[in-house]
Amino acid sequence: MSTYADRLAALREELARRRLDGFVVPLTDEHMSEYVGAYAQRLAWLTGFQGSAGTAAVLPSEAAIFVDGRYTIQVREQVSPDQWSYQSVPQTSVAEWLAATAPDGARIGYDPWLHTKQWVQAASRALKEKGATLVAVDTNPIDAVWPDKPLPSAARLIVQPDALAGRSSAQKRAEMADWLAEKKADAAVLSALDSIAWTFNVRGADVDRTPVALAYAIVNADGTADLFTAPEKVSDEVRQHLGNAVRLHPREAFAGHLAGLGGKRVAADPERAVAAIFGALEGAGATVLELRDPAVLPKAIKNEAEIGGHRAAQARDGAALCRFLHWLSIEAPKGHLTELSAAAKLKEFRDATHQLKDLSFDTISAAGPHAALPHYRVDESSDLPLAIDSIYLVDSGGQYQDGTTDVTRTVIVGTPTAEMKDRFTRVLKGHIAIATALFPAGTRGSQLNSFARAPLWRAGLDYAHGTGHGVGSFLSVHEGPQRISPAGSAQAGGDEPLRAGMILSNEPGYYKAGEYGIRIENLVLVERREVAGAEKPVLGFETLTFAPIDRRLIDPSLLSADERVWLDSYHADVADIIGPLLEGEAAEWLRAETAPL
Amino acid sequence: MSTYADRLAALREELARRRLDGFVVPLTDEHMSEYVGAYAQRLAWLTGFQGSAGTAAVLPSEAAIFVDGRYTIQVREQVSPDQWSYQSVPQTSVAEWLAATAPDGARIGYDPWLHTKQWVQAASRALKEKGATLVAVDTNPIDAVWPDKPLPSAARLIVQPDALAGRSSAQKRAEMADWLAEKKADAAVLSALDSIAWTFNVRGADVDRTPVALAYAIVNADGTADLFTAPEKVSDEVRQHLGNAVRLHPREAFAGHLAGLGGKRVAADPERAVAAIFGALEGAGATVLELRDPAVLPKAIKNEAEIGGHRAAQARDGAALCRFLHWLSIEAPKGHLTELSAAAKLKEFRDATHQLKDLSFDTISAAGPHAALPHYRVDESSDLPLAIDSIYLVDSGGQYQDGTTDVTRTVIVGTPTAEMKDRFTRVLKGHIAIATALFPAGTRGSQLNSFARAPLWRAGLDYAHGTGHGVGSFLSVHEGPQRISPAGSAQAGGDEPLRAGMILSNEPGYYKAGEYGIRIENLVLVERREVAGAEKPVLGFETLTFAPIDRRLIDPSLLSADERVWLDSYHADVADIIGPLLEGEAAEWLRAETAPL
Repeated sequence: MSTYADRLAALREELARRRLDGFVVPLTDEHMSEYVGAYAQRLAWLTGFQGSAGTAAVLPSEAAIFVDGRYTIQVREQVSPDQWSYQSVPQTSVAEWLAATAPDGARIGYDPWLHTKQWVQAASRALKEKGATLVAVDTNPIDAVWPDKPLPSAARLIVQPDALAGRSSAQKRAEMADWLAEKKADAAVLSALDSIAWTFNVRGADVDRTPVALAYAIVNADGTADLFTAPEKVSDEVRQHLGNAVRLHPREAFAGHLAGLGGKRVAADPERAVAAIFGALEGAGATVLELRDPAVLPKAIKNEAEIGGHRAAQARDGAALCRFLHWLSIEAPKGHLTELSAAAKLKEFRDATHQLKDLSFDTISAAGPHAALPHYRVDESSDLPLAIDSIYLVDSGGQYQDGTTDVTRTVIVGTPTAEMKDRFTRVLKGHIAIATALFPAGTRGSQLNSFARAPLWRAGLDYAHGTGHGVGSFLSVHEGPQRISPAGSAQAGGDEPLRAGMILSNEPGYYKAGEYGIRIENLVLVERREVAGAEKPVLGFETLTFAPIDRRLIDPSLLSADERVWLDSYHADVADIIGPLLEGEAAEWLRAETAPL
Repeated sequence: MSTYADRLAALREELARRRLDGFVVPLTDEHMSEYVGAYAQRLAWLTGFQGSAGTAAVLPSEAAIFVDGRYTIQVREQVSPDQWSYQSVPQTSVAEWLAATAPDGARIGYDPWLHTKQWVQAASRALKEKGATLVAVDTNPIDAVWPDKPLPSAARLIVQPDALAGRSSAQKRAEMADWLAEKKADAAVLSALDSIAWTFNVRGADVDRTPVALAYAIVNADGTADLFTAPEKVSDEVRQHLGNAVRLHPREAFAGHLAGLGGKRVAADPERAVAAIFGALEGAGATVLELRDPAVLPKAIKNEAEIGGHRAAQARDGAALCRFLHWLSIEAPKGHLTELSAAAKLKEFRDATHQLKDLSFDTISAAGPHAALPHYRVDESSDLPLAIDSIYLVDSGGQYQDGTTDVTRTVIVGTPTAEMKDRFTRVLKGHIAIATALFPAGTRGSQLNSFARAPLWRAGLDYAHGTGHGVGSFLSVHEGPQRISPAGSAQAGGDEPLRAGMILSNEPGYYKAGEYGIRIENLVLVERREVAGAEKPVLGFETLTFAPIDRRLIDPSLLSADERVWLDSYHADVADIIGPLLEGEAAEWLRAETAPL
């Protein structure tokens, strides 16, 4: 196997052959996916970096890797300083670094299938100051020097039954056709994999943790569609499900098809479609309407069937988590558990449901100081024991055909300090503030975000991540467009009005570097509330996730009467919904854990 | 006196003479001021509209006036439907209306001294679709047909003593010179009147309600400055105060001076400087740096002298308001007061301080249903009596040399309904939530805004204005850049981080159309707080305004224990600070009004 130094040298030779002075290597795929298939792990292959977000930039004599605050430590462990300099985003953008470092007049390559148009425009502008130009490559130069590059997954598509989807694909496409008519558009390009899966009521297994298939789609004003995906992955059953109104094409035919849309008015989403798609449409002479992908909003607003599915998945997953927490309550005090063994046991309980399709993300199984890293990922080299009198944080979820789950519990092994209880109770108060919020229709997530932080703010504390993200229905565990986060923060979505039927996480936290971390996460459903005398439609949240919140970490004197009522009532719901699914000692343990405070 | 129909006809003739097909008439001056002098009241002269915000657009056969929701009723009373159509902003923008209504290829005039560059760019883009063009006029065509147009005010400048300003003008300009050096700029253009007044420690009387003088200024990298204002308005005392480093020029010399800045790097604020300034600089060959006016932030962050001045002004103004409220408590139940007579009496009490320079805005003296109009302005034709068993809302403030005040109290004449008490108490809870908020440094006003609304939201209620605006020191009663308002709302400022020393209003409200309105407004000072164990610097608010909050409108059962503690402690402060300034029955009345709940 080649060394990372060899790989960088090979890439530089390839760039020289192509008369390029540099190249940019993002961590994404042609669909701007958050999680990508093995074939698209170019950044990891080139640098060794295993994090979930980052970018590399390569010049003839310099190379840099750009990561955010989550990966400051990890990048130094995984990527050699002999070849790479470490850069922090957002403090330094790739474009700024290139503009400052690239030779005057340099030709910097980029793969237009891996960047948005906005990125290309901004980077071009930044480079212009140096007389440098950004050059689109026809084929990715890394692929030319990556001899054992994995092939795209050959996993077959499966049907997501209408009974779970709640609406047929034909209905969804008819609604999109209405939308196209309203926008006076002939067609809409769908390139986000979850949008395609949702629109056609299919799922796949091409990407870790997200049940989607590699594909592109074009939905036409007449309700028909063109779906571009490997034909050998489409079974007769799926073909029948798709019906005659969906024309199947190989994935490779997509760019050619775009070239045939000259003279048409075509909608494409500048946040989700890559620059190459806009380039192909504009090159063909199509009129491009920059509009949000029409699947995004209806996908986020769950219908009754999807909500029913979520409830079933949550009960099933909650029972598995409760079995794990019961097991943990017995085994952890014995002192022999580690982060890896605990995560494996939790996976066992989820597997035992016989309905788990995949985890919805890599389990964050974090003991003591590791819990202070909100995105910690355990491996053999980092695996810590669950020490006595320390905190254990487990953030995990499952992909079930009826729903996607995401839940975090923080438990004490042994006895907590007074500070731990103070911090845990403040996080709980913030969690309850979101769970019990009432707000008028039209309110955006950013307007609720401070409710979750106020109890920490009073003590001069805070957490550096958002409060809540959208969650899909047997789709992405991080799903847009809505989010509970400060306005204008790096992660967009706080400006999206919340609508009844949206599902979000509610996950305030607190992190004390080097010592411990706390996060309490449930999923919540936005729902209409009847309020006597209300002058506006009122919305609130129904909590969907059921598992006990560790009472040993709560300082009851810090809770208001209303907060105690919420906690006791939540625990009563946990007992009602999860209790009947447990047996013997686990059921007894749950009864004690969910007794009134 | 000509009729409004005559005036519109005269303008159309003038436009035809200039070969223009249309003209846009905003309500502002060359300084983008919120309040403008009589000479700049072109919209009122042309249409009769007396509101504080609006725009007219005139075409050969159509004319429209654009106002926001505050003025929907008023515009119909004041502006004739025979000549004008009514348009609502932001639903319809002037540019959209022109693009839809103007003849193809039309030439639409605008005065580049009355619009921002952004407005010009956006309107030009909108008109382009029709092949129409936006044409800058050299002189305003309204001025050509307005025979008795008032001359700009001849009021003389006065010195704002260093003891009240806290820093000399030379110090302020030295800091701006440092800022210019950091930005590698040669000069900064100041065109906002309050920025100029603050920078030179002068005040004026050219604009109603805001003690500023009509002027422009250029601050140079060497700490010298050029000040453009009518020479006859500058006394020897002011000349001496300004010193040799400030070169005086007539106001008319400003444009010519800009034309001499070719080759220089000049900072100008795109939100505060008009398009003509950018045009003149670009035309001269200057490099324009679009940067925020360097006076804006230091002006907003009050120093110790300014804070001390505010405290003195607040006590003086609070005593005047308390005398009024005491008088009101005796006279209102007799049933003979009206909105005008009450406002006049309040002015009398403020005048009796012998230190009032001006009101800081037209007093909102609103009885019963008028209180439901947040920006109501009483006149002879609207003057309502203060009816028994109804609400009276008074929002008022004074300009004193040591500080600007702004306070709203809502009182019941007679007996309130249970609904009034419920609503008043919810507004009070929101007010207390802001008054007692603690938050980390870096927090923006938009992140606090929902705290003030949450108690109303729980009942399906809300208010349609912001929660707080900045306030100047013997300057504008509405001062940027900070604001407590939802992110992305029409009024910018919610995104500005709050900093210790900033003064804002805290003014949640509730308005029941046709019945009553409630607003409780105090000014608050952002200050550092020491919190044991805090991991970040903590900020909070100190309330600066002292006057009793009407206990008869409070439902104590809706208040939490902490909220009662705040109210009682606030009232104790009112008694301590205002009590010694009152005598006899007024002092006794205050004692009763400020007793613990």
